[in-house]
Order: sequence, then structure tokens, then C-alpha cells
Amino acid sequence: MKFYHVDFEPVGRRGKCRHDESLLDCARRLGVGIISLCGGLGKFHCCKVQILKGSLSEPTSNELESFSPQELKDGYRLACQTYVTSDCKVRIPLESLTTPQRIQVEGLEVSVNRKPSISPYHIQVSSSSLSDLRADEERIIETLNHQYKLHCRSIDIDVLRNISPLLRSWNWEAQVSLRGNEVIAISPWPTHQLGLAIDLGTTKIAGYLLDLSSGQTLAAEGIMNPQISYGEDIVSRITYAIDSSAKAVKLQEVVVEALNQLVNNLCSRVHAKLEEIVEAVIVGNTAMHHLLLRLPVHQLAFSPFVPAVRRALDVKARDIGLCIAPGAYVHLLPNIAGFVGADHVAMLLATEGIWKDGGLVIAIDIGTNTEVSLIDNGEISSVSCASGPAFEGAHIKDGMRAANGAIERLQLINDQVKYETIGGVPPVGLCGSGILDAIAQLYLAGVINRDGRIGNHARVRIHEGQPEFVLVSEEERSGSAAITITQKDVREIQLAQGAIRSGINVLLQERSYSEEEIKKVIIAGAFGSYINVISAVSIGMLPLLPLDRFQQVGNAAGVGAKLGLLSEDKRVKAQAIARRTSYIELATAPHFQEIFAQAIYLG
Amino acid sequence: MKFYHVDFEPVGRRGKCRHDESLLDCARRLGVGIISLCGGLGKFHCCKVQILKGSLSEPTSNELESFSPQELKDGYRLACQTYVTSDCKVRIPLESLTTPQRIQVEGLEVSVNRKPSISPYHIQVSSSSLSDLRADEERIIETLNHQYKLHCRSIDIDVLRNISPLLRSWNWEAQVSLRGNEVIAISPWPTHQLGLAIDLGTTKIAGYLLDLSSGQTLAAEGIMNPQISYGEDIVSRITYAIDSSAKAVKLQEVVVEALNQLVNNLCSRVHAKLEEIVEAVIVGNTAMHHLLLRLPVHQLAFSPFVPAVRRALDVKARDIGLCIAPGAYVHLLPNIAGFVGADHVAMLLATEGIWKDGGLVIAIDIGTNTEVSLIDNGEISSVSCASGPAFEGAHIKDGMRAANGAIERLQLINDQVKYETIGGVPPVGLCGSGILDAIAQLYLAGVINRDGRIGNHARVRIHEGQPEFVLVSEEERSGSAAITITQKDVREIQLAQGAIRSGINVLLQERSYSEEEIKKVIIAGAFGSYINVISAVSIGMLPLLPLDRFQQVGNAAGVGAKLGLLSEDKRVKAQAIARRTSYIELATAPHFQEIFAQAIYLG
Repeated sequence: MKFYHVDFEPVGRRGKCRHDESLLDCARRLGVGIISLCGGLGKFHCCKVQILKGSLSEPTSNELESFSPQELKDGYRLACQTYVTSDCKVRIPLESLTTPQRIQVEGLEVSVNRKPSISPYHIQVSSSSLSDLRADEERIIETLNHQYKLHCRSIDIDVLRNISPLLRSWNWEAQVSLRGNEVIAISPWPTHQLGLAIDLGTTKIAGYLLDLSSGQTLAAEGIMNPQISYGEDIVSRITYAIDSSAKAVKLQEVVVEALNQLVNNLCSRVHAKLEEIVEAVIVGNTAMHHLLLRLPVHQLAFSPFVPAVRRALDVKARDIGLCIAPGAYVHLLPNIAGFVGADHVAMLLATEGIWKDGGLVIAIDIGTNTEVSLIDNGEISSVSCASGPAFEGAHIKDGMRAANGAIERLQLINDQVKYETIGGVPPVGLCGSGILDAIAQLYLAGVINRDGRIGNHARVRIHEGQPEFVLVSEEERSGSAAITITQKDVREIQLAQGAIRSGINVLLQERSYSEEEIKKVIIAGAFGSYINVISAVSIGMLPLLPLDRFQQVGNAAGVGAKLGLLSEDKRVKAQAIARRTSYIELATAPHFQEIFAQAIYLG
Repeated sequence: MKFYHVDFEPVGRRGKCRHDESLLDCARRLGVGIISLCGGLGKFHCCKVQILKGSLSEPTSNELESFSPQELKDGYRLACQTYVTSDCKVRIPLESLTTPQRIQVEGLEVSVNRKPSISPYHIQVSSSSLSDLRADEERIIETLNHQYKLHCRSIDIDVLRNISPLLRSWNWEAQVSLRGNEVIAISPWPTHQLGLAIDLGTTKIAGYLLDLSSGQTLAAEGIMNPQISYGEDIVSRITYAIDSSAKAVKLQEVVVEALNQLVNNLCSRVHAKLEEIVEAVIVGNTAMHHLLLRLPVHQLAFSPFVPAVRRALDVKARDIGLCIAPGAYVHLLPNIAGFVGADHVAMLLATEGIWKDGGLVIAIDIGTNTEVSLIDNGEISSVSCASGPAFEGAHIKDGMRAANGAIERLQLINDQVKYETIGGVPPVGLCGSGILDAIAQLYLAGVINRDGRIGNHARVRIHEGQPEFVLVSEEERSGSAAITITQKDVREIQLAQGAIRSGINVLLQERSYSEEEIKKVIIAGAFGSYINVISAVSIGMLPLLPLDRFQQVGNAAGVGAKLGLLSEDKRVKAQAIARRTSYIELATAPHFQEIFAQAIYLG
């Protein structure tokens, strides 16, 4: 039997693949989630992967049918039909990556009726001459309005700045990108019209480059939010920004620089030009939204915590320093409240298909700040829970972000700790889902009681006067420091889970529902996609419900941003969602202190 | 008899004033034009001046009636009622400065029905609270729309950037400046709404600060266009700009810097703040317009010389770097053609009262580039003449700009040259009106013949093989070089006057009119205000018509810019004027070469 080394990107998982094992099976064995709807029959396009390096079995007839010759040439294959014949490097396109029930959200993306805010028009204008002395601007507007029966009224000043030499170099033929009654770009005919969707998170930024005419996602990439250097959570960044206007400017500059880098990366992946991006949609929580636009944040930090702007905004990309097509706009989806932002709206927009007819639904986006909505017959109420950065690995002794070497899955079997690490490399620490598993396993095994106190166990030891549970000992790490769960770690997780659970409970209480009446729990966000729901339920972070009521939908905020990019109707819908969502300030909810004190108990 | 020294600013004219001579009479004696309609009776407000230094007779009852206590305190007086009692420094407000028939234009300014594009609204919004969590933006828009039955839809992003702390510091009371459906400024209630009108000339820039609510001109100032360092005339600047985009950027930067300096000066004169300026109107020739906006100019330099943009534009001030209220717009009046720009439209707009019912009218704006329009029953045709910078003193041996020491008036009486210099100081050279007088006087005295050849005369000498006429000899200048008119100088003026006259003749020919049918000649522009019309007619630059058909209207382009600032109707009118003005390219007009060859003959 032969083995080859396979490297799955961008997840960074490496492992061995047998010569008689399909790439899909290998990926599954290694814990890399690839969507597969047909069960390995090569019927759908869903398990699409791209081979970056290495040789493979010949394409099957299914594959020849699924892909264009260019796609085949670019290395696109169906993972379920492909066998490796050498060491390989495989890229899994974002749309092929899965989490347990992520499909439903990704499905929405495909089914949207495209109605982008930008329309391309082909024009051939008559050249200027001594008998036709019209200005270049009039020439374009008049041709456009006459030929397509439009009411275009103006051309963006930055577009005008290049118009004359370009028109002449293209022999008076051009593609005009119209937004409402304004020309926001002019390019050679034909040119791709690309769109940019950004999910601007407190910790991570996800960017998607879309083809506006097909709706296809051409490239996706995630980067860290560099504002982290100025504060890990929202409150510390706001504090930084209100210290001086120079600091607020700094926060904006670094994030815009990162966005521009991200856009550059996305473009170079598909050999696109920045100026082909004619529209962007950005979603983020209210603080990220305000810091990006350099809106005032002082009032976000003090009761009653109101945003400067809640409604959707259209801002020229140049007014925030984003380098895309010179006349392009950035559309910002609406916020709900000071601590429930456009990213939550985007998530609700993306998951509408799930909650619309679903009875009582809880939709939750777990992060440093966790937003929870309760949807009851179309009426939505929301809260924001300060769950803190513990699930990002912060404030946890051996915590780390979800990077190579992080324990992401963990089981306690008798006295043995079984774990999986990201990248399959020796363990370095615990990322959020690993921490959650660890606390749940210790609680289920009785090592931790409901109060969170660590009791006796073969792996419990006293370190600097405090008990800690050894997950990976010094010996197992060949002399490196042991990876442990300390009493303080348990307290941190209790606070985080207590914050989330009390958010859910306040929402239920406000509408006089009991937990059992919840028909669905939508769990969104990167972290939410990776957690073991059983662990979350075990420690009491999520209510005890039949498992099939939970749906992990992945980065639904990013999908919502894409929807806003592809469809003006979805923007209208987002406004409607934001408008009909009420906000409950937890601190002022009746009995909040009791609810919280109750919620921090495990189980 | 007592004499005091009086210094008239900003014209810089100094001289002696008798104790029994009114300031108005003194000014007239010194050649400083101050408007006076009532003939010294103190009846109107027209001869208003401001005393900057020195003591005067007590205010008369007419003056006490004419001015508010604050104005009197600020030194405002009527020149016809005031006698000096010490050495004085006197400022003549721009609106009080006159040229022979300038009044009619300045009158228009007063009579315009104000309808500015910006309206102020007073709002008192309810403060945010736990029971009213609306965003600050919504709070403003909803209050505004509800209270005033408006349809405001958005607030400029730069306004939003300050909105929250300001609203709170003003106790939720504010003045909102609305433009269309957009909030472009927010300020404490009440705040002056100021407007900026700019006449952006190739050589000079005139700026006016207006109170939009009263229509009053609060301050006016002229500065040089710093682009002069990069080319004296339009063509050389375009050549510079198309050499590289860095150079085009440079040209824009220096002019914007100058505008910002001008705005600062205007504001500090009246203790106004930059952010009180909520709208600007800029007019200039097409090249200045394009260079300011950094629009492409390459196509302006080659046949068929079409502009990139001809229609009126509204551009955010920040998009050209102009520092006024953060969300304010700059409105640019429309251009007519590549070499007939918005300044000519502004002039036509300002003089509409003169030409509207006036039969056949010629309107002419003399400058480095001279634009001429023929108005025939509401139909307008225009040409552009490359008259060159000779009238700015360039390319003339002893030429200079209109600054202290420049000979501005000249007469040849027998063999004596009588002259007046600017500032009354010893002569340094000749400015445009002086050059024009000199050529006219030499021609009328027979020293120059129709061909422009200098003949014999006691003051003619041969210098470096060429004849020259000595205006001021070395002896008269105490040993400094003589001020002379050379044969080459005469040729330069012939070319300039020939260019202008052939423009007029082409327009007449195109409509089959003869000169005698011209009912009025409107002469606009700074230079046009100072010239002796008789001289211009004598050499043939202007057609030989009864003198009362000529009207020197001063800086009518600046007045047009003000009108555009004060009235949206005037903007509409300007568009209509630009649209109905046809343009004739001189080089392609029938018989142009003959017409030009004929026109360069003097007389």
C-alpha cells in the first residue's frame, strides 16, 4: 500500500493519504470538512477542490462534465472522484469547506436573485470633432441615457479625472458602471464587475471577492484585525480611540491598511485589478463599524450606549481610504444598537431561510462580544453579552488562537486525555473549542462540580497553591511545560458561558417563554462553527435541547455581506430586519443579576 | 490750508487730502473710483468706506442713519460726508469701488432674489436615554423631517464624524444646514451661514465671502494665481500639466493652497470660522476649471479642443482639498467650450440685465485669453481669442503688472509725456492700461503709422538697431534706464488687439451684422475696467462706436459667481446660458486669416 503526503490549504492540515483513498475520504479522516451532498458519486459540484501541486488520477467523466476545460487546467477536481498519485498540495475553496450544518447558509448564497446596485452598460460614443464639440462627460451621459432610456445625471469626480484619455485610448467604446443615476466607474468593454464583501470582526477580518454578474465567489481570505495591538476587545479599543483623535485616526488607518492589503491579496489570486471592484459591502459590530468610518465612539462607551449611526450608509470608498474603483461606494449594512451591529444583521439576513418559518428561534453569534437574538413570529429582540476573549484563547493559561498546534477537540476517557490538534502537529495549547471541550469533559467526569471547583482526580495537581488539571504532561511534551486547565481558567469560562446563557435567558424571560419552546438555535461565527455543541450544552452555555435543533451555520455574517453585495432587495431586507429588532440592555433587564448568578453554574 | 496724508486700500493709492475736501472728492482727485449715486448728498449707502487709522469729522445725521452703531464703531463712513482731521488709512470695500459704469453690475448683485442651495434649520432633539436608543443620526433626521416636513435622507460622512460629541455639548440643540436632501453641516444655533465665491483667473484670483442669509459681501480679496510660476498663459500650463501626472497634481496643489490661504484671509478679516462656509461657487476659464479639479487637459490642447466636462458640477470641497465646512460642496458653473469657460458664463449671468433687452450686444472679457460673445436676441455665439499676456505687461520691454509704480494712464501733449502711476510713486514701468494709452497716443500723434511702424519724433531714438519711443528718459529717472516703447512692443500689442478685434469681426460676420449695428459693448474683467476705452477704440481693438455704447462692468465674473452662490435660479440660468451659447473655433471660421491680417492694422 502506498502513502502520499497531502497538504490541505487554507486550513493548513497535513497528513498521509492512501493511494486507494479518495481525497474526500482522506480529508474526512484528517478532520478537514469538505461539503459532499451526493455521498461520493461525483454528482454535484459541491466537493470542488483545487490541486496546487502534485499529480492525480485522470479526471472521471463526472469531472469532465462538472468543469470547464479552463477549470480543469487550473487544477479543479471533485474530491470524491480524485486519487492522489504523488505528494500533493490541495486548496479547498471556501465554498467547499463545511461545518456540520453549514450547507444551508451556503445554499442561500446561491439562490439569491441577483440585483446588484451597480449595472454595466456598453456604450460606443461618437468621437469629438469640430462639428461635435460636446464635452466628454456629456457625450457619455447623453449616449447612455439615449441608448438605454436612463436618467443618469452625473459622473463621479474621480472617474472624470481619467475620462478623456481613456475614452480616446479605447476608441470611444467603453463599459459604464452605473449606480442609481451616477456613473461610478468607466472601463474598457467588456470588463468584469467585481464586488467586495467584508466581515470586519473584532479579531478577524474575512474578505470575499465576488463576480457581480454571476454571483460567484472568486476568492476568499481571512486576516487578523491589526487593531488587536491597540486593545483585544471592543471596550478597550473604544477607550483607546476616545483618548485622543490621533489615536482614533490610528485605529482607522491600521484597519484600512489591512483591508487594502486584503483586497490586494484577493485580486492577485484571481489576477483581477483593484479598479474592477465597483462596490463593497462591509459588516461589523457597531464599534468596528464606527472605528472604520471614524465616527464618534465616546457615546458608545457610556450609558445609554447609543451609536452615532444606525441606518445603512453609502460612503465613497475614498472617504474611508479604501482603494477600489475610484468612484465606488462602500455600503454599510445597518446597526441595531451600540453593541449589536451590522454583522448581526448580516447573520440574520443570511439565516432568514432558517428562522423565517421556524417558530421560536435563538440566533447567536459567539465571539469576544456575543450577540443573541430571539425571533418570535418575525419579531426580533436582541441582547449583547460581554463573553470576553476567553474563547479566543485569551486570559486562559494555555489558551491560544485557532492556529497550528492548538488542541481543538478533546475527550477524557477514563484517565486518558485524547485530543486532536490543528494541523495534526504536537500540541502547543488550547483554542476555544478545545477549552470548551476540556471544561465540559471535566464537568461530565465530575472533576469539576457545578460551582466550577476542581476536585480530586489522578491528573489534578496543586500548582502555586491552586489546583490544575493536567491535559498534556511535561513528559508527554518531552520536557516542555505541561498544558493544564487551572482553577482560574474554569472561572473565566464560567463567566463567558454565564454571560451568553444569561443573554438567552433574559430574552426568553422578556417574552415569557421557556427553553423547551425554542425550536431552533442558530450558531454563527467562526468559533461557533468549530465548537462541539454537546460540550456547549453540557456546561450550560446553551440550553439543553435535542441536538437536531442546533444549526452551526459558519460565517453567516460574511454570507450576509455577500447577499447585500449581490442584491439591493437584500439591503432593503436588512434595513427591515434592523428596524424591527428591538434591543434589550442586559444591565437593566429585570432580575439580571439573579439570572447571571444562576447562569454561571455549570450544567 | 491744512493737508493730511491719506492711504486708500486695497488699491494702494496714497496722496494728500485738504481739510475742506471730502474723502470722496479726494479719492476722485487721486483717481480712486468710489461709487456715488447721490452726488455727495449722503443719501445712499453707496460710497461706504472704512477708516482703518486716523481721525475724522463727526458723523453726519445721514451717516448715523445709514450705519448701525456697530458699523460706526468699526469705522464705517460715507466718503461724501467725511472730512479727515489727521493722516488716515481708508479701506474701500469692493462693493464701493467703481469703474465708469460699474454700478449696473453691482446693482444686480443687490437685487437678486436669494434662494441659496443651503437652508438652515433650527432643531432641538430629545436626548438619548435608555428608553430612546435611537442613533444620533436618526435623531437629527427624524426631528428635521418631522418638524419642517422635509425629506432629508442622509448626513455627510464628515459631518457624522463629529456629530455625537457636538450634539451633546450643545445640549441637543443645533443648526442643521441642508442641501437638497443631505445634511452638509451642523453647528450651534444660531450660526452665520457663509458662502464663498471665487473667480479663478489665469493670473489673479478674486475671493468673496458672503453672508448667505443677507446676501451681503462681508469681505473680498484678490491674490495672484501661483500657477503663474508654471506657465504664464493657459497653453503653457496645459503643456506643463500633460507632461506628467505629478505636474498636474502640482498645479492643482498650488492653486488649492492659494485658495485655502485666500479663504483664511477672508475669514480672519471678519472673524469668521472656516466651517461657517457651507457652500462655494468657483468660476474660471475651462483650463483653470480643469486644472483645479484635476480633470484631464490633454484634449484641451489639441483640435477639436473639447473639455472633459462642460456642464455645471457639484463636488465635495474635500475632493478638491478646499478647507471649508466638512460636508460642503463646491458648485462649478458650466463651461461653454474648451476655451470659453465658466468665468465667461458668470460674466454673461451678471450682465444679463444689460444685454437681455439690448439688441445686438458684444460682451468681452479681456485677459491673457479674451472671450467675446455676440448676443443677438437671446442667441449667443462666442469665440476665444489668444490675446496673450501683453496686457498683463508680459513680453513688453518695460511692461509690468498693475502694481505700485506702474504707469496706468498716459497722454502725449506736444512732445511732453504726462502720466499717472499706481500709488503715485515714481514710474517703474507700464501696466496694461498704460501700454494701451501709449500705443494709442503714439498712433494718434502720427508717431506710429497704421502698419505699426515707429516713425520720426523728437523722443524716438535708435536702440540696438531698432527705433524706440522714450516715455520716461534716463534723466527723468535720475539715471535709471529709460522707460520706452519699442518696435517689438508695438508688434505685440498689434497681435493682441488684432486677436481681439478679429474675434469680434468673426462673430459679426457669422451673423451678417455690421459694427454699426452693435447697440452695446460690455467690457468685463479687471483689465477691461481700467483701460481708457478711447485708447482701445483709437487703435482699433474695439469698434468705433459712440462712447456711450461701451460699459465697463468690472469683475463681472466674480459677480456672476456671487449670484450663483446666492440663488439656485441663477445656477439654472447659467446652465441655460451655457447651453444656448454656440462656440466658433476662430481658426476654422471662413476668411479668418484675412480678417486677422486686417485687424492688426492700427486704427
